[in-house]
Amino acid sequence: MASWYPDIEMEETGVGARGRGNGNNTTGARGCIRTRQYTGTSYRDSGEIKFCISEYKSDAFQMMLLMKSNQMLTDVKLEVGREIFHGHKIVLAAASPYFKAMFTGGLRECEMDTVKLQGVCPTVLAHLLCFMYTGEIVINEMLVCQLLPAATMLQMNHVIDACCTFLE
Amino acid sequence: MASWYPDIEMEETGVGARGRGNGNNTTGARGCIRTRQYTGTSYRDSGEIKFCISEYKSDAFQMMLLMKSNQMLTDVKLEVGREIFHGHKIVLAAASPYFKAMFTGGLRECEMDTVKLQGVCPTVLAHLLCFMYTGEIVINEMLVCQLLPAATMLQMNHVIDACCTFLE
Repeated sequence: MASWYPDIEMEETGVGARGRGNGNNTTGARGCIRTRQYTGTSYRDSGEIKFCISEYKSDAFQMMLLMKSNQMLTDVKLEVGREIFHGHKIVLAAASPYFKAMFTGGLRECEMDTVKLQGVCPTVLAHLLCFMYTGEIVINEMLVCQLLPAATMLQMNHVIDACCTFLE
Repeated sequence: MASWYPDIEMEETGVGARGRGNGNNTTGARGCIRTRQYTGTSYRDSGEIKFCISEYKSDAFQMMLLMKSNQMLTDVKLEVGREIFHGHKIVLAAASPYFKAMFTGGLRECEMDTVKLQGVCPTVLAHLLCFMYTGEIVINEMLVCQLLPAATMLQMNHVIDACCTFLE
């Protein structure tokens, strides 16, 4: 039965929805399964099923991190002091409104493949880039004093919140 | 107290870990909070905290989808029949080993900004691209017959699994 498939969160639509789902679904071995009926009028009687793959985004970010590590498809170099960090503009822009404005706002950085960053030290940028590709950041007392202003400059609200939480 | 902060899954390290966490943490208003002690010997007495922001990847994908819709930072056009679909090579490569090989394997497509795709119809490609940026796909009886071979060609295992589940 489709509705018992692990790792997939499903929304079932339509009156009969091809006979699947009885409203008594449980979670699968590894993932979350949810079945809903009538999520949209337009789907009525269509027997459509919406599959929401909960693992997909993590898998995709893991692959993007791997490609960053191997400098595959990277299209920007961030120069900080004497160090160079490679990255993907789309990932940086998705994580930071500062980078989004830099890469899409018609500034000369849009066309540049190397961007000099001021006001961030290499260690802090390494942590921030790691966050951009993993959603995880390790904070300690030494780091937080530099991380908070850098995250503020890059407008990375999740990291700002994490720093403030650390300091509370 | 940091350990009560919503939306952040936290791992606390170090013996004292700056006095935070008592092992009795609960979930916050919207997110999941977990506190662990002694996750690594190297962290002992360091008072480091690892923040895992569960919402980050969804937020980032939402932004990437928005940028795709507005053709911001898109670096590839997929030509299918008379239709053109814009996308980001890194996102397509992260979602599909077929595209990863195409864009990074030294083929002439690496340097091309327009790629002609055979064996996929525009409707199916639209669904697959939507999945690549959202992790969600709507399947119906009409679609599944074309979606399964296309997902197989693009080696998109999550979609293949969803199609097989639909057909079971």
